[in-house]
Amino acid sequence: MTAMPEPAPSPSGLRAFYAQVRQHSEALAAPLSAEDCAVQSMPDASPVKWHLAHTSWFFESMILSHRPGYRPFDARYSYLFNSYYEGLGPRHPRPRRGVLTRPGLDEVLAYRAHVDAAMEPVLDQPGAHDAWTLLGLQHEQQHQELILTDIKHAFFANPLLPAYAGDAPAPAPCRPSTWVEHPGGLAEIGHAGNGFAFDNERPRHKVMLHPFRIASQPVSNREFLAFIEDGGYAHAQFWLSEGWAKVQEEGWDAPLYWLKDDDGSRSLFTLRGARELDPDAPAMHLSFFEAAAFAAWAGKRLPTEFEWEAASDRFEFGQVWEWTRSAYDPYPGFKPFAGAAAEYNGKFMVGQLVLRGGSFATPVGHAGPSYRNFFPAAARWQFSGIRLAEDL
Amino acid sequence: MTAMPEPAPSPSGLRAFYAQVRQHSEALAAPLSAEDCAVQSMPDASPVKWHLAHTSWFFESMILSHRPGYRPFDARYSYLFNSYYEGLGPRHPRPRRGVLTRPGLDEVLAYRAHVDAAMEPVLDQPGAHDAWTLLGLQHEQQHQELILTDIKHAFFANPLLPAYAGDAPAPAPCRPSTWVEHPGGLAEIGHAGNGFAFDNERPRHKVMLHPFRIASQPVSNREFLAFIEDGGYAHAQFWLSEGWAKVQEEGWDAPLYWLKDDDGSRSLFTLRGARELDPDAPAMHLSFFEAAAFAAWAGKRLPTEFEWEAASDRFEFGQVWEWTRSAYDPYPGFKPFAGAAAEYNGKFMVGQLVLRGGSFATPVGHAGPSYRNFFPAAARWQFSGIRLAEDL
Amino acid sequence: MTAMPEPAPSPSGLRAFYAQVRQHSEALAAPLSAEDCAVQSMPDASPVKWHLAHTSWFFESMILSHRPGYRPFDARYSYLFNSYYEGLGPRHPRPRRGVLTRPGLDEVLAYRAHVDAAMEPVLDQPGAHDAWTLLGLQHEQQHQELILTDIKHAFFANPLLPAYAGDAPAPAPCRPSTWVEHPGGLAEIGHAGNGFAFDNERPRHKVMLHPFRIASQPVSNREFLAFIEDGGYAHAQFWLSEGWAKVQEEGWDAPLYWLKDDDGSRSLFTLRGARELDPDAPAMHLSFFEAAAFAAWAGKRLPTEFEWEAASDRFEFGQVWEWTRSAYDPYPGFKPFAGAAAEYNGKFMVGQLVLRGGSFATPVGHAGPSYRNFFPAAARWQFSGIRLAEDL
Amino acid sequence: MTAMPEPAPSPSGLRAFYAQVRQHSEALAAPLSAEDCAVQSMPDASPVKWHLAHTSWFFESMILSHRPGYRPFDARYSYLFNSYYEGLGPRHPRPRRGVLTRPGLDEVLAYRAHVDAAMEPVLDQPGAHDAWTLLGLQHEQQHQELILTDIKHAFFANPLLPAYAGDAPAPAPCRPSTWVEHPGGLAEIGHAGNGFAFDNERPRHKVMLHPFRIASQPVSNREFLAFIEDGGYAHAQFWLSEGWAKVQEEGWDAPLYWLKDDDGSRSLFTLRGARELDPDAPAMHLSFFEAAAFAAWAGKRLPTEFEWEAASDRFEFGQVWEWTRSAYDPYPGFKPFAGAAAEYNGKFMVGQLVLRGGSFATPVGHAGPSYRNFFPAAARWQFSGIRLAEDL
Repeated sequence: MTAMPEPAPSPSGLRAFYAQVRQHSEALAAPLSAEDCAVQSMPDASPVKWHLAHTSWFFESMILSHRPGYRPFDARYSYLFNSYYEGLGPRHPRPRRGVLTRPGLDEVLAYRAHVDAAMEPVLDQPGAHDAWTLLGLQHEQQHQELILTDIKHAFFANPLLPAYAGDAPAPAPCRPSTWVEHPGGLAEIGHAGNGFAFDNERPRHKVMLHPFRIASQPVSNREFLAFIEDGGYAHAQFWLSEGWAKVQEEGWDAPLYWLKDDDGSRSLFTLRGARELDPDAPAMHLSFFEAAAFAAWAGKRLPTEFEWEAASDRFEFGQVWEWTRSAYDPYPGFKPFAGAAAEYNGKFMVGQLVLRGGSFATPVGHAGPSYRNFFPAAARWQFSGIRLAEDL
Repeated sequence: MTAMPEPAPSPSGLRAFYAQVRQHSEALAAPLSAEDCAVQSMPDASPVKWHLAHTSWFFESMILSHRPGYRPFDARYSYLFNSYYEGLGPRHPRPRRGVLTRPGLDEVLAYRAHVDAAMEPVLDQPGAHDAWTLLGLQHEQQHQELILTDIKHAFFANPLLPAYAGDAPAPAPCRPSTWVEHPGGLAEIGHAGNGFAFDNERPRHKVMLHPFRIASQPVSNREFLAFIEDGGYAHAQFWLSEGWAKVQEEGWDAPLYWLKDDDGSRSLFTLRGARELDPDAPAMHLSFFEAAAFAAWAGKRLPTEFEWEAASDRFEFGQVWEWTRSAYDPYPGFKPFAGAAAEYNGKFMVGQLVLRGGSFATPVGHAGPSYRNFFPAAARWQFSGIRLAEDL
Repeated sequence: MTAMPEPAPSPSGLRAFYAQVRQHSEALAAPLSAEDCAVQSMPDASPVKWHLAHTSWFFESMILSHRPGYRPFDARYSYLFNSYYEGLGPRHPRPRRGVLTRPGLDEVLAYRAHVDAAMEPVLDQPGAHDAWTLLGLQHEQQHQELILTDIKHAFFANPLLPAYAGDAPAPAPCRPSTWVEHPGGLAEIGHAGNGFAFDNERPRHKVMLHPFRIASQPVSNREFLAFIEDGGYAHAQFWLSEGWAKVQEEGWDAPLYWLKDDDGSRSLFTLRGARELDPDAPAMHLSFFEAAAFAAWAGKRLPTEFEWEAASDRFEFGQVWEWTRSAYDPYPGFKPFAGAAAEYNGKFMVGQLVLRGGSFATPVGHAGPSYRNFFPAAARWQFSGIRLAEDL
Repeated sequence: MTAMPEPAPSPSGLRAFYAQVRQHSEALAAPLSAEDCAVQSMPDASPVKWHLAHTSWFFESMILSHRPGYRPFDARYSYLFNSYYEGLGPRHPRPRRGVLTRPGLDEVLAYRAHVDAAMEPVLDQPGAHDAWTLLGLQHEQQHQELILTDIKHAFFANPLLPAYAGDAPAPAPCRPSTWVEHPGGLAEIGHAGNGFAFDNERPRHKVMLHPFRIASQPVSNREFLAFIEDGGYAHAQFWLSEGWAKVQEEGWDAPLYWLKDDDGSRSLFTLRGARELDPDAPAMHLSFFEAAAFAAWAGKRLPTEFEWEAASDRFEFGQVWEWTRSAYDPYPGFKPFAGAAAEYNGKFMVGQLVLRGGSFATPVGHAGPSYRNFFPAAARWQFSGIRLAEDL
């Protein structure tokens, strides 16, 4: 197993980063009631309160529990807030996270304060734990985006269509797209340098590319609407077999969160509530199946994650996660993190697709060009969109 | 359709009854947090908050909406809090009641106050609406028991096993049981007199009984434990076919909420949290299947609902609901309530079993000798137990 | 437990009855290929070949296995062809009967011949085994009707819509219906006399009836079509709650096996293949839910099984099984058959409804006025129809 | 879309190949009864009869239906025997292929003869149809292996454990394995030359490899048994997350078709019936999850499909399909076949894994070094095994 990566921040930088990340999670929960924070609208989504607790459990399990004298806030939380770490013992079933009305939100906030206090001496002592601390913070940033995707899903399940916040974040509009050409050849893929990176971004290695071009912008709502209006959801030939089955089983006829008003006009459910559809905004809440079908309809294809990364210095990204045509496989020579964190990424490397880029809801600085997000092909509740490519 | 029954209480009695019932519902919610009140632990159970709102919706739909000038608290609540009345329009899906974090508990309490205020002039005006008001109150009393059964289920799903309240209600212990003999013959069954009764208790009619005897007490935990220890859950011959299938599919080996400690000793999850098993308390949280299997093991049988009612003036009841051997069928000449309340009981008269008696959690005075409760044969989360009978 | 009933036939009558029943089962399979005899189109239906083997297994298990010197045809068949007798050991799972391509049809016919040969000395020796023999034959007659219902279901699942036989049995048309009045009072219900009866028809006992009338004929296709055309399947108010859920989940808009041609005209899939709808034929392949909804739409109700039996000497029956408004409960004083046959009927006495009368596919003489058939409320693949009743 | 590939065989070679392939399919069905040929033991498997018909339908749909004057054997077969071609119209649902007792086996053989007769003039006329004919034959060869995997699954579902044939094919034993080293660098991947290849094997393209070594032999039963006995199925750390979930849900503790006798000894269900476990035979009937877990336990990994292909001229293969660590993705520049065959492979390129090599049941000459087989990660009923690799 690989050693933990050397953290980039200086000791004082790490302390500031810790403070910023921990506070930001609580700020994300601030517009929500205790009831809002407790709900789980589907097995894939988690309660906001659970995210707040689990990210604290991570510091407790990976760092604090190894320090002599640490007293856990509540010994039973190791069962409640373990997500999927078999090596750390049994855990509460994922689909039942929504039944945990206790501990209440107040208790979870007290648990966070307890963990923060216990982390003080760790942050004071640069060295041994810095890499783990950094991992814990990057981990918490991943959950910060999930707080938004999961509460959006929960609110959409409520016929009242509540808004998360009137000034909630939203994606910037697309600009006119051009084509970025790439000549192919051997490309270096994966995280470079010594800074923090997840294990799945390493090792950096060479990949052979064939000449291609890639769009400078993601697909917009206007473009996706043309697909819908041209019968995109009604014609099997654009679809992967499993995608077409989903279209029929689930009755998909538009991205998730698109609303059809009585007069046939379209609006969107957003973190600000139901809003008029902005044709220039990037299309999002798409499954891989829809992304691939759109590309087929457009006579293009999705880029591989390697094409995406190799060309990423020549286009803008960061408003929506972008499905790639690449299965989530380990890089050659992949080594998982050490210790309990060995389960972090590697054990999910089958049956999922890689998304690249980051979204408007991704914490600033969290996701860079080598960052690999991943979801099953049918997932739609993420801020997931499309960037087109084609062979040259 | 039958006219609504004449209410028994005098006008001032009705006002007092209204105040008592409405306050009691809120008192039941008082030990709970807003999060506790929002959770739904299975499709058959509802959030406490939903019970609080639905019982108010009932007054709104059956009475207030017919009064000129009534302004609903929120027009969308007719969709959210309709339980199963097809005639009153579409409704939020039952298994998704737990996603309704909005309206929050505070708003629901405000909704209750709004309905109570609007009911003031109705209560001032004895006459037309009294029968409906009384039905609304009896209906709310039914939900008061469900508030307790449903939060118990939710708390049991939480590994922390929270207590509802340290002084929560509990069943009185059984006393030594004797046999009550009945000679059979024609018996009058169903509600007598002009007082309030549910439509399913009427009309009063004659039923032919055959000589039998019936226990003076429900089965106790001690007795049920003997069944368990004698292999009751391990031998097919005691079980109805569908019950035996359940035993195997669900791994039943004790009533719901029985806990087995590491040393093999038994305790129970109660509204007061986990407690030592009281051998004298009535066995409860049993399905019909378990009740029938226990009776077969004991060489007895369950009474029919008619036997139960005919003999009920000669034994004590009211600590646990008692499964009968009677399917929930309409009485000869059954007429549903008038208007929207026609759906109250009649449409459920297939595939369920009748329970009689009432439990320690049933509001005092709510259930009498002719009262017919009903649940599917596999239901275990009610306060449901056993009274034995046999042929003479 | 009750002793087995005394058989009515004389010894020579029993031998002739044995020969007739056993031959008739094989005659029913004669129009079918080996492939047809092996198919299972749903868990509730069984392959024809399985029926042929199971009815032989019954003689083997209940009689032959207790006779010294009997050598089973194949010891493994006791596992393969046990239907549901827990007391006789484990068995092949019901939903997987269709995977049993071995033993082939030829082997099953050889198994039948083996059992028939072994039964010869039993039939020669009147006495001890006569009651069991008679039960075995009545049992086989029950399966003879199932052979037809099950192959009909399998053929309907085949887009080629094969006919079982061009001259297959079909129900006689309804005649104009009149009302038969009954004054109510105490009625004797259950099988009278010493002849063969199933355990569920006993003991004969008194039931109190209230004045009613009952139709002299079952409901015809013409009448049921009027229900359909009046929106019967589109209006919740006619339906039991669980029935309405089925209508929506399954998309029911006509009885099972009704076909809608491209021009909107109706035809039926029958044992003779697809045929024009005969408006005078009794409506059949109805669930209890549809029967009850039709009755509600017609302003009538279904009879109880007691009303049906009490009035049955005054109307014709026998073309379709008639759903009653009675749950399948044990009679007062019910005793199951002795020995392994104790599981025959009693363990199914919950969650099902009683049907009375017999159908055109019921072997002649098999079902009389006290005969109790039973199926779950949603079952539609039986020859099940409607007889109306109402209060006087 | 790509043009169909040029067929390699000469015209007379094609005719001989046609005769050989078509006869071989029928020879595979020869040991089976009509009942055996009709059964479908799970949705993923098809009846032998269906394979016989579908492979004929392929010639009919792709070639004969485009020839003037062709009269189909039965116009309804285009619905019954279309597997998954949306462009060729609706089709019988895959999980219900087992209900098709009609057409009987005899009729399906007559259908095959009809198609063969109609293909005569096509085979006489070299040219236009040769590529399609060759595709049809390669397609039929794929189904020949499925005939064996599917009947094996069906027979295993039968408690009698019938043998397909006493002399049925079986895998050759493994020989001692050595390591084959590969220096990495750019490798040419995909089918070379003009001979027949499936669309998913093209285009040939360069892939960058990193130094690795790969076993010269597949994993044997002896080696896999060591994994089992070392607790391989009991320790999460060897497993992908989704694989570990399967282990627990399905109770996996050995490969499919391994039997545990009462004395604990192991045997295998084979096409020859239950046989003693041969420790030297290649382990097979493994899912990808088991293959990956074995590799993790052994401290190795699975090869990528590119590593496999690049090194394949230096090891023996062909006894079992070998799971690779590669998701089934399109090659750069992938073009599906023309016309209706565009759906042949491309639409399945998500969520599956590539297997390489071929098995003892693969028709001789069918699968070469560039051949890409693919199945979902949990599939176990194929003749699928393991070849190990590791980084250098």
